[in-house]
Amino acid sequence: MKSFASDNYAGVLPEMMEALQKANVGHARSYGADEITERTKKLFCEVFGADIDVYFVFNGTGANVLSISNATQSYNSVLCADISHIYNDESAAPETFTGCRFFPLATNENGKLTPEVVKTRLIRKGDMHYAQTKLLSLTQSTEYGTVYTSDEIKALVDMAHAHDLYVHVDGSRFFNATASLGCSLKEITTDTHIDMLSLGGTKSGMMFGEAVVVFNKELSRYIAYKHKQSMQLASKTRFIAAQFEAMLTNDTWRKHAQHANAMAQLLASSISKFPQVRVTKPVQANGVFAELPREWNELLQQSHFFYIWKEATNEARLMCSFDTTPDDITTFTSVMSSLK
Amino acid sequence: MKSFASDNYAGVLPEMMEALQKANVGHARSYGADEITERTKKLFCEVFGADIDVYFVFNGTGANVLSISNATQSYNSVLCADISHIYNDESAAPETFTGCRFFPLATNENGKLTPEVVKTRLIRKGDMHYAQTKLLSLTQSTEYGTVYTSDEIKALVDMAHAHDLYVHVDGSRFFNATASLGCSLKEITTDTHIDMLSLGGTKSGMMFGEAVVVFNKELSRYIAYKHKQSMQLASKTRFIAAQFEAMLTNDTWRKHAQHANAMAQLLASSISKFPQVRVTKPVQANGVFAELPREWNELLQQSHFFYIWKEATNEARLMCSFDTTPDDITTFTSVMSSLK
Amino acid sequence: MKSFASDNYAGVLPEMMEALQKANVGHARSYGADEITERTKKLFCEVFGADIDVYFVFNGTGANVLSISNATQSYNSVLCADISHIYNDESAAPETFTGCRFFPLATNENGKLTPEVVKTRLIRKGDMHYAQTKLLSLTQSTEYGTVYTSDEIKALVDMAHAHDLYVHVDGSRFFNATASLGCSLKEITTDTHIDMLSLGGTKSGMMFGEAVVVFNKELSRYIAYKHKQSMQLASKTRFIAAQFEAMLTNDTWRKHAQHANAMAQLLASSISKFPQVRVTKPVQANGVFAELPREWNELLQQSHFFYIWKEATNEARLMCSFDTTPDDITTFTSVMSSLK
Amino acid sequence: MKSFASDNYAGVLPEMMEALQKANVGHARSYGADEITERTKKLFCEVFGADIDVYFVFNGTGANVLSISNATQSYNSVLCADISHIYNDESAAPETFTGCRFFPLATNENGKLTPEVVKTRLIRKGDMHYAQTKLLSLTQSTEYGTVYTSDEIKALVDMAHAHDLYVHVDGSRFFNATASLGCSLKEITTDTHIDMLSLGGTKSGMMFGEAVVVFNKELSRYIAYKHKQSMQLASKTRFIAAQFEAMLTNDTWRKHAQHANAMAQLLASSISKFPQVRVTKPVQANGVFAELPREWNELLQQSHFFYIWKEATNEARLMCSFDTTPDDITTFTSVMSSLK
Repeated sequence: MKSFASDNYAGVLPEMMEALQKANVGHARSYGADEITERTKKLFCEVFGADIDVYFVFNGTGANVLSISNATQSYNSVLCADISHIYNDESAAPETFTGCRFFPLATNENGKLTPEVVKTRLIRKGDMHYAQTKLLSLTQSTEYGTVYTSDEIKALVDMAHAHDLYVHVDGSRFFNATASLGCSLKEITTDTHIDMLSLGGTKSGMMFGEAVVVFNKELSRYIAYKHKQSMQLASKTRFIAAQFEAMLTNDTWRKHAQHANAMAQLLASSISKFPQVRVTKPVQANGVFAELPREWNELLQQSHFFYIWKEATNEARLMCSFDTTPDDITTFTSVMSSLK
Repeated sequence: MKSFASDNYAGVLPEMMEALQKANVGHARSYGADEITERTKKLFCEVFGADIDVYFVFNGTGANVLSISNATQSYNSVLCADISHIYNDESAAPETFTGCRFFPLATNENGKLTPEVVKTRLIRKGDMHYAQTKLLSLTQSTEYGTVYTSDEIKALVDMAHAHDLYVHVDGSRFFNATASLGCSLKEITTDTHIDMLSLGGTKSGMMFGEAVVVFNKELSRYIAYKHKQSMQLASKTRFIAAQFEAMLTNDTWRKHAQHANAMAQLLASSISKFPQVRVTKPVQANGVFAELPREWNELLQQSHFFYIWKEATNEARLMCSFDTTPDDITTFTSVMSSLK
Repeated sequence: MKSFASDNYAGVLPEMMEALQKANVGHARSYGADEITERTKKLFCEVFGADIDVYFVFNGTGANVLSISNATQSYNSVLCADISHIYNDESAAPETFTGCRFFPLATNENGKLTPEVVKTRLIRKGDMHYAQTKLLSLTQSTEYGTVYTSDEIKALVDMAHAHDLYVHVDGSRFFNATASLGCSLKEITTDTHIDMLSLGGTKSGMMFGEAVVVFNKELSRYIAYKHKQSMQLASKTRFIAAQFEAMLTNDTWRKHAQHANAMAQLLASSISKFPQVRVTKPVQANGVFAELPREWNELLQQSHFFYIWKEATNEARLMCSFDTTPDDITTFTSVMSSLK
Repeated sequence: MKSFASDNYAGVLPEMMEALQKANVGHARSYGADEITERTKKLFCEVFGADIDVYFVFNGTGANVLSISNATQSYNSVLCADISHIYNDESAAPETFTGCRFFPLATNENGKLTPEVVKTRLIRKGDMHYAQTKLLSLTQSTEYGTVYTSDEIKALVDMAHAHDLYVHVDGSRFFNATASLGCSLKEITTDTHIDMLSLGGTKSGMMFGEAVVVFNKELSRYIAYKHKQSMQLASKTRFIAAQFEAMLTNDTWRKHAQHANAMAQLLASSISKFPQVRVTKPVQANGVFAELPREWNELLQQSHFFYIWKEATNEARLMCSFDTTPDDITTFTSVMSSLK
């Protein structure tokens, strides 16, 4: 079965399986004190071009909650997009674990936050009745499959820092975004002065595992304790580290992210040929958003399952992954042809 | 000094001071096991016309947090008005103590929630990724000084109950609202089938103290434990109970609430005579919202301080309380006259 | 009805009622921005002989939870006596609001903690698997009615500070303890270098209200936000402040605390004359602990109710308060005489 | 490198690697809606002989916190051994996520809880000031490598249930315990009427993954929401399920657990031959506790690293795992021989 449901429907990249095999030798210190973890953390510093701190966690919600918890006190508030994953798809875990208020911000037509909309919530500083705003959380690539440019991120970071807010990036598809921009990981992180990054591994072809990357040394003081406390410290950490090592070595991540992005481009252009289909968002990473005739859903989903993002307009979200093939797209569009 | 800043700038009603004096006799069992508390709880049952449970607490935030905590699990979400006190003025206490997500809903032009807007968040039931909606919190009277009718509340309760949500009313000015409606406390609570009420005492002329009233027996199972745990169980509870006893006896509350409401009417009609002033909301309880010339603020606030609710339009919020006098209003409008 | 049940069974001191009456004049800014609160905070600085920060709260649990929450992160642990109020009588509020682990420590025969027993938990520093110890909480006077000397507190503070722990004192009966020591409030707080104090008002004859006193400026950074968030910021704060003002003026507190302490001495010496009675703890504040014949309980409790502290040995806790009279004691012992 | 440090120093069983490879085919629904997960849950029902609910999680702390959170409200308390992992080695995660108080209980000389010691905390039921006891958490095998018999567990369950407590078993080494008892998983779980089990996979040779098994249907009502909320719902759940499927098929778990247990027996008997060594606890699972001459530590730890459990007596904890070999033991004792 293949689908356009989500990039987490895909399995595990061959390079990752190989890394897991290679890491499975003898005994290793547990809870991240092993050599592979140490080595991989150094590799992160090289790749991100800075003396950063890295914490390996199990999943995206864990990465986001740990990041936010690490940068806030319980009387704080967090700004995030109203369409963001942390606002819609992580239960109330962000509130339960951080205690914070989460204020949703409207995104522009491409699913991005702007300094203008952020500014509307930079209010009541010093007023103890108001949950004090302390963090801005962005998603890269966005929930609409669009990608913030380096300049866009810098502008948001500048505004946030000017008002004493930290900036966190939820990067469950950060590799796709960076591949789309064609820049280095350093250029879109260290150089934009973001404070923390949830770097996604699972949706990029790892079996499990994400990394919380801390760029701002102020935020390194006690994250190790939060890491354990948030139930995100893996007993056999070497098996997460080994996958990231393989991912970051020789830009393995870029190759596969570029492929997934290219498949999204092909998918978008292929379905755009049908006059009944309207691609609704710029295709910049590995997702395609498109309005389809509602009556097409059933047969198309039998071929390649996907989720309807917006019921009202029957807007579908079609996600490509490292294992999407041109054949998948051809098959999908041939079903479309049979329907029109 | 007198002001229109807030009804909590006023002091304590003579009837309350007298009740406090009378309660100060000898020893009494602590933590609510005393006779005055027992007696007052019975009085609540009579007045509200039902076998209800009553818990006395210290302040409004305590009442709201206890109520919400009592009706939710940490994976739940709560629906409230985007202008509500719990969303804007109670720090992140609601999240910190309940763990829940709070979804803001847009109110209509009179500051009220409607079944239509509530319905937009009655989504994704059973989806573990989404903080499951479990409670609707209304404010009566609203933050704009308007009052839900009995029918409006019933319609919201019907929709909420049909979707397995509880309904909580934040009633820090509930006495003003009920006096405005001219109905009994029973008619606007028990008869509308709301589940819980934060009944405000402080803003109505008590020294301190609010009551959490539980109408739905399902919600009585463990609230006594939550009451203590939420730091809201007074050692000398008799002094909160005694004030409520005085308030509920012979409709003391109604007399003073009617006065405050009448002063708001007088204030609204008096300032309406100035063409530069626009009363922006229906005056139904003890608050008046009005746009004023910005250059008037300084001198008017020196006479009777008030807060600017909305900076953009210089919309002032003018609150009347039990001790507002016609003289206060005359003085205020005479300053206006001097300014025009 | 009079009793030896608890000092919170007593009502309100005349000086407090008078202060409440006097404070009830006109309008005052809410939430602690009023003049009485400002004035009283200055008085605290004078009395405690230091530039301290003071936050008025509603009750003892609120004072303790706010203090602890203000000095810890959620991955921390707190050391407290196994017989302490925060460990036994505040539900799970300390954990729920702070997230911390509370480690109970055994007290010596007089109910006091010692540096030796504290030391046993000063372990595993820097180990992220272990809830990092950050605070030591003492009770003054202790749950057994004994009083730490200034030197005993200094020794505990020295050990705590040497290991990077803060020291908090739960002082619901701090006035009794200080009166017992015959020293100034400054000598037993500022001069011993404790970091925070929950200063009890209610059990000393106030209607309601406690004060969180912050001696360590490091802990003043964000307590104002925690104060509001923990549901402990009173709308009409002036009525708590006014009581503390009356209490601290002319050492009002000392007069009444000395009386209660003296009554405890008289009670202890009076009941000690009965060979069937054994006073079990040094009587240093306003409580007397004594083993009685179990068959005496019923009639004695009808005369003056009290609680059995330890069932196994029928050890009673007899609390004196500002309104205990020699007559109360005579009546009580006359019942004893009738029973022997 | 090989060690006796912990069974989580070992890598991944060949059967697990094979299962992971086999599961890595095509697309699968995410978040546990896949076929392997469905199949494996059915296998759990067969193996445990009951209509149970199973939730796959990432690690042991996650399993414990989810279990406890699922059976408690925030005003509850939990009873656990003072030497337990949840009390010593999971930071303050249990408190932070559940809000509960954790009361430590003394274990007997073999590290087991008894009904007698549990009974000492079955107090103050219905008293809102006391964190109401709701759950008893046992560890099987215990932290001292001993194993509760079926009768011992039943006695604890009977006492707990009689007082309205749930029973949770922290079974990070449950396979070792069950292999030691020589019984079926059903006999030591379903038949003893425990309510929930944290079933350990990682220490038994899985790469990652544990299972929360719910035997009591009362506790199945909302655990799915807690599962997601506690950051323990794996995106690609199939890779945890597949390992458990391999583990439960043909009693794979028993073969490897028996081996580890047998190695512990061999290790204990081998080192017992040295008169300087005293094995301190019955060896019933895969751990050996032994007092050694302190001066032996350095060279022995160079050969096979281990942790000192108790500094005072230089009591070492020596853990065997699925990959411990007789050669490891011979090498270790040969170092001992060289030291004596």
